[in-house]
Amino acid sequence: MGRIIALLQLDPTVGDVEGNIAEIEAAARLAAENGASLAITSELAVSGYPPRDLLLQPQFVSRCAGAAESIESSIPMIVGTPLPPVGERHRPGNGAIRIVPGRRSAIATRKQLLPTYDVFDEGRYFEPDDNPGILRQVNGMGIGVTICEDAWQHAGIVPLDYGTDPIEQLANWEHQGEPLAATINLSSSPYHLHKEDTRAGVARICAKTLEHPFLLCNQVGGNDDLLFDGRSLAAWPDGTLVQAPGWCMGLLLIDIDNPAAARWIPYPDGECENCECSVQVVSPDAEPKIQSAGDDLLCALTTGLRDYCRKSGMERIVLGMSGGIDSSVAAAVACRALGADNVVGLSMPSRYSSDHSIADAKSTAEALEMRLEVLSLEEIHTVTEDLLGETLTKGEPVAAENIQARLRGLLIMAHANAAGAMAIATGNKSELAQGYCTLYGDMVGGYAPLGDLWKSEVYAVAETLNAKAKSAGRTPPITRSTLTKPPSAELAPNQLDVDTLPPYDELDRILQGHIEEGLSAEELVAAGEDAKTVSEVLKRLYANEHKRWQMAPSARVSRRAFGQGWRQPLAARINGS
Amino acid sequence: MGRIIALLQLDPTVGDVEGNIAEIEAAARLAAENGASLAITSELAVSGYPPRDLLLQPQFVSRCAGAAESIESSIPMIVGTPLPPVGERHRPGNGAIRIVPGRRSAIATRKQLLPTYDVFDEGRYFEPDDNPGILRQVNGMGIGVTICEDAWQHAGIVPLDYGTDPIEQLANWEHQGEPLAATINLSSSPYHLHKEDTRAGVARICAKTLEHPFLLCNQVGGNDDLLFDGRSLAAWPDGTLVQAPGWCMGLLLIDIDNPAAARWIPYPDGECENCECSVQVVSPDAEPKIQSAGDDLLCALTTGLRDYCRKSGMERIVLGMSGGIDSSVAAAVACRALGADNVVGLSMPSRYSSDHSIADAKSTAEALEMRLEVLSLEEIHTVTEDLLGETLTKGEPVAAENIQARLRGLLIMAHANAAGAMAIATGNKSELAQGYCTLYGDMVGGYAPLGDLWKSEVYAVAETLNAKAKSAGRTPPITRSTLTKPPSAELAPNQLDVDTLPPYDELDRILQGHIEEGLSAEELVAAGEDAKTVSEVLKRLYANEHKRWQMAPSARVSRRAFGQGWRQPLAARINGS
Repeated sequence: MGRIIALLQLDPTVGDVEGNIAEIEAAARLAAENGASLAITSELAVSGYPPRDLLLQPQFVSRCAGAAESIESSIPMIVGTPLPPVGERHRPGNGAIRIVPGRRSAIATRKQLLPTYDVFDEGRYFEPDDNPGILRQVNGMGIGVTICEDAWQHAGIVPLDYGTDPIEQLANWEHQGEPLAATINLSSSPYHLHKEDTRAGVARICAKTLEHPFLLCNQVGGNDDLLFDGRSLAAWPDGTLVQAPGWCMGLLLIDIDNPAAARWIPYPDGECENCECSVQVVSPDAEPKIQSAGDDLLCALTTGLRDYCRKSGMERIVLGMSGGIDSSVAAAVACRALGADNVVGLSMPSRYSSDHSIADAKSTAEALEMRLEVLSLEEIHTVTEDLLGETLTKGEPVAAENIQARLRGLLIMAHANAAGAMAIATGNKSELAQGYCTLYGDMVGGYAPLGDLWKSEVYAVAETLNAKAKSAGRTPPITRSTLTKPPSAELAPNQLDVDTLPPYDELDRILQGHIEEGLSAEELVAAGEDAKTVSEVLKRLYANEHKRWQMAPSARVSRRAFGQGWRQPLAARINGS
Repeated sequence: MGRIIALLQLDPTVGDVEGNIAEIEAAARLAAENGASLAITSELAVSGYPPRDLLLQPQFVSRCAGAAESIESSIPMIVGTPLPPVGERHRPGNGAIRIVPGRRSAIATRKQLLPTYDVFDEGRYFEPDDNPGILRQVNGMGIGVTICEDAWQHAGIVPLDYGTDPIEQLANWEHQGEPLAATINLSSSPYHLHKEDTRAGVARICAKTLEHPFLLCNQVGGNDDLLFDGRSLAAWPDGTLVQAPGWCMGLLLIDIDNPAAARWIPYPDGECENCECSVQVVSPDAEPKIQSAGDDLLCALTTGLRDYCRKSGMERIVLGMSGGIDSSVAAAVACRALGADNVVGLSMPSRYSSDHSIADAKSTAEALEMRLEVLSLEEIHTVTEDLLGETLTKGEPVAAENIQARLRGLLIMAHANAAGAMAIATGNKSELAQGYCTLYGDMVGGYAPLGDLWKSEVYAVAETLNAKAKSAGRTPPITRSTLTKPPSAELAPNQLDVDTLPPYDELDRILQGHIEEGLSAEELVAAGEDAKTVSEVLKRLYANEHKRWQMAPSARVSRRAFGQGWRQPLAARINGS
C-alpha cells in the first residue's frame, strides 16, 4: 500500500452539520478512488469554523461529535470536530476523531494551544489538552496529530508564549524510538494578504524539527467575517514544499515519500476563483509563487461575498452606485460573486452630484451587464428639508449633509426588502476608520465587502478587474474617470475627501502603522509622519468607534480588521492618543 | 489604631487614568479623615472596567501601573490596576498595588481566575497568576488579597471549574499559623437583576471558610454595555453581613471587629439614584433587603444612560415618541438621566397612527416637562412611495412598512446631528430577539436603554415611574392608555404585535427560558410550552441575529444579554432549533 495522504480542502458551512458531513464523505470517496491511504479534514470541519456561540449548546457539540464518529469511509480518516467536555463545568474540546474502517472510532487529539487574540476566541469556547496526538498505526503509518495553532508556537511567531510546544513534544516522542511517518495539522487558518508566506514558513520549520513530513490541511471559503484561502500544504525536512491552490475546493494528494508526485484534484462542486488551480512543488531554496495583491484580494472579496450570500440564503444584491471607486469596485465584486443578473445598482443623484458621477455609474453597470436604476433624490430631499426647516438650516452642517446619505440608504433598503435581496455597504477601511461615512446612510447593508480594504487596495483591485476584463475581450468596468477623479462624498457643493482627511496615501500609511503594526503616535512621528496629521487621524479613529460598533460584517483581508479583534471601549476618553 | 477598612465604591471612566486617580485620591483622603487605617478600591479602578482593547496598548498598561504607584495617600491603600506583563510575548496582569506611606509601592497580587464567558473576556487580555496575594503587615494587619472571580470558584457557582481555588489557598496559609485579619476582594462585578443575592452568598461562604472577615469592594456606574450596582459588602464567619447601598458612589467603612459599627459616607460628587442610601447590617439568619424589580431596574437604566452620556460627552438626547410603552418609558428614563431640559421627543404620526398615539405621547411629554415636536410623516411618506413606485407596491409588504420606520429614523438622526445630541433607540429585548423592529428605522441610536429589558419588565418600570411621580405629587408620566392598549408597531392599518408574535407573556417565558436558562426547544416543550410557538420563536430568534450585530449597546440588566455574550454565527443554518 502506498503512503498517500489526502488533504480535503473543503468549504464547510457553520452549523450545517449534515451538509458538512456529506461533503466530507464525498471527498473521502474521491480520495479513496485516487489511491489515498488516509484522508484528513481541516479543523472543526464538521461544525465549520468559527462555530462561535453554537459551542455553548451542549446538544450541538454532541451532534457534531456523533456525526463525525458515524462517518462512512473506505479508508482511514482523521476528522476535525468539537468534542464534548470531559466532566461537569468544563468546556468542549477542539479535537479530531480517527476513523478506521471496521474499527470503533476514537479521539485522535484535542487541541493544546487555543488562540485567543485578534479574530480568535478559542479560550472562550474550548478547554485545552496537555499532551500531543499520536496515532500508532494508521494503515501502517505512525501519525502525529496537531490542530492549527499547535504548530505555531514552535515557529515563534504567534503573539503569545504558550509555554507548551506540541511540535517539540512530538519530536521528543520520535527520539524515544517510535518513528512517525508524518505529522498532520488540521487548520482553519484565516486569510490575510500574504498569510501564505507565513504558513509555508511554519510548515518548513516544523518538518525540519520533526525530521519527517508535515502536512497542513486548511479550510477554504468565507464564514461571516472570516475568510480562509485554503492553500493546504506539505513540507519535508529538507525544505521541499508542496502547496495547493488558494480559493478553491479540492483534494491535495501527498505521497509522503515523493513530493514531486503531489496531485491536486478539484472537488466537483467547488467553484474556482483561481485561474491556475494547480499544485506547486517548491524546491528547498525557493518560495511558493504568489498572486499579485490585486488578484489575491479580488479572489478573497469574491469568495467572502459569495459564501456569505450562499450560506445565508441570499440570492440577490442591491447597492448604491455613485460613480466613485468604492461602489464601482463593490458592484464588480457583487457581479462576480452572484452573477450580474442578481445585482441591482441604484444611482441616486442629488443636487450636489456631478454629471460624471452618473455617467461613470452607468458605464460601469453597462460594462458589468448589470441593471442600474436611476432615482432622483431632488424631490424627496427638498420635502425632507422643508419638513425639518430650521432644525437643518440652523443646526450643525453635518445634519444636512447626512440627509442625502440616509435617504439613499432608505431607498437601497426599500429595494432590498422589496426583492428579498441583501443590501451591501460599499465603504472602505480608510474612511470607516475615520468615521468619514454616514451611519444608517452609506453604511447600510448586511455585509461590507470592502470594509477591510485600505483605499489604496481598492484601487489595486480596480486595476485587476480592468485587466481581467481586457484580457477577456470585455470593456473594463472601472472607468478612467472613476480611477482618476479626486474622491468626493458629494454631500455638499464641490466637497472633496481631502477637505476633511489627509491624502489617502498619507492616511493609509498612518492607519496601517497604528492598527496593523501597533505603532504609537510617537513612533509614527519618529518614522517621519507629520505630528499634527497623526494626532488628528488617531483622534478621528477613536472618536468614531461608536459607528464601527454598528457596522455590518466585512471579510477580513488585512492583518487587523475592525470588529472582533478591534473593540475599543465606547465611553473612554482616550487621552493623548 | 483601629482596624477600619474603607471600601471606595467609585465610578471610574474607562481610559481616563488621570481622572480616575484623582477620584481615588480624594476618596482616600475622606477615608483617612474618617479614621480608616486601610483603603481599597474596586478591580481595575485605575483604568476603569472593562478596558477592552486599551489593554493591547503597552503604553496604556504602563501608564496605569505608573499612575497607581504614584498615588498619594496618608493611609495604606490597595489599588486595582492593569500591570505590565512579565517578559516578552506575555499578557498584562489584572492586579493590585499596595501603597504604604513612606515605603515603595509593591505589587499586592495578580488575579488568578480570569472569567472568559458571557460578558467577560479576561482570558483574551490578561495572564493569570498562580499564587494568592498575601500582605504580611499593613498597619498591623495581615491581609489576603483576591480579585473578583478569585473568590467565586470557592462558592461553586461560576459556570467553569478553574481547578484552582484562591480562597482555599488563603485558608491553608492561615492554617499554617500566620493569621490574617481579613481577606479583601477588589471587584468589578457586573449587575444583573438580583445579582446582589448571589454576591452576598459568595461573601458569606468565603468568610466562613477563611474564618475571618471577607470584604468586597465593587465598582458602581455604567461603562458602555456593562453596569455595576456597587453594593460593596463585608461578611463575617458567623454569617453577619454588611452591605452598601446600590447605584451610588461612596465609602463603606468597615470595622472588622464590629459589624454594627459599619458606616456609609456618600462620596461628594456622586449622584445618588438610591432613595435610602444607607448601609444595611444583616444578621446571620437574614438576607439583605432588596429593592423591587421595578425600582432596581429604573436605577440601573438611569445609571447606564447617564454614565454613557457623561463619559462620551453627550449632553442631549433625541428620541421618537409613539405613545407606546417603550418610547414613553425610554423618555422618562432619559429625563431622569440628563434632566428634562436636555431631552427632545419627536412625535411622527403617519397615516396608520392612531389618534391616541399622538395624545399619549403628548401627555407623557407634558408630565415629564420635556419638549415634544410633532412632525407629520404624510408628505415625505407619499413622496417616497411615489419615487419607489412599483418597487413598493409589487414588492414584499415589509418593504413598504419599513419606509415609515426608516423615515422616522432619518428625522431623529437629523435632529440629533443638528443639535450635537445622541439619538436613543427605544426597542425592548423581546422584540429585538424576534427581529420585530426595523434596522436603520426604530433601531437607530447610539444607545438602546431598554434593549436588555423583557417587555414585561418595561411594564414594571412604567409602574415604578408612575408610583414615584405620584408620591412626589406629580402627574404619572405613563398614561393609562399607554399601559393598557395592545402593543402595535402601527406600520400598517390596524396592525397589532400579536398578529406576528405570540402574546408577550408567552414570548418572554420562552425567550427567557432559552436565552437565560439555556433550555432547548425540547426542554421548553417538556416544561409545558406550545411546540409550534417554541419552534417559531426560536426560528425568528436565530434568523434575526444579523440585526443584532448592528445594534447599539444596551446596558445589561438581565442574566444574559445580546451582544458580547450572545454572538451566533450569521451564516449558519441552525437546523432544528
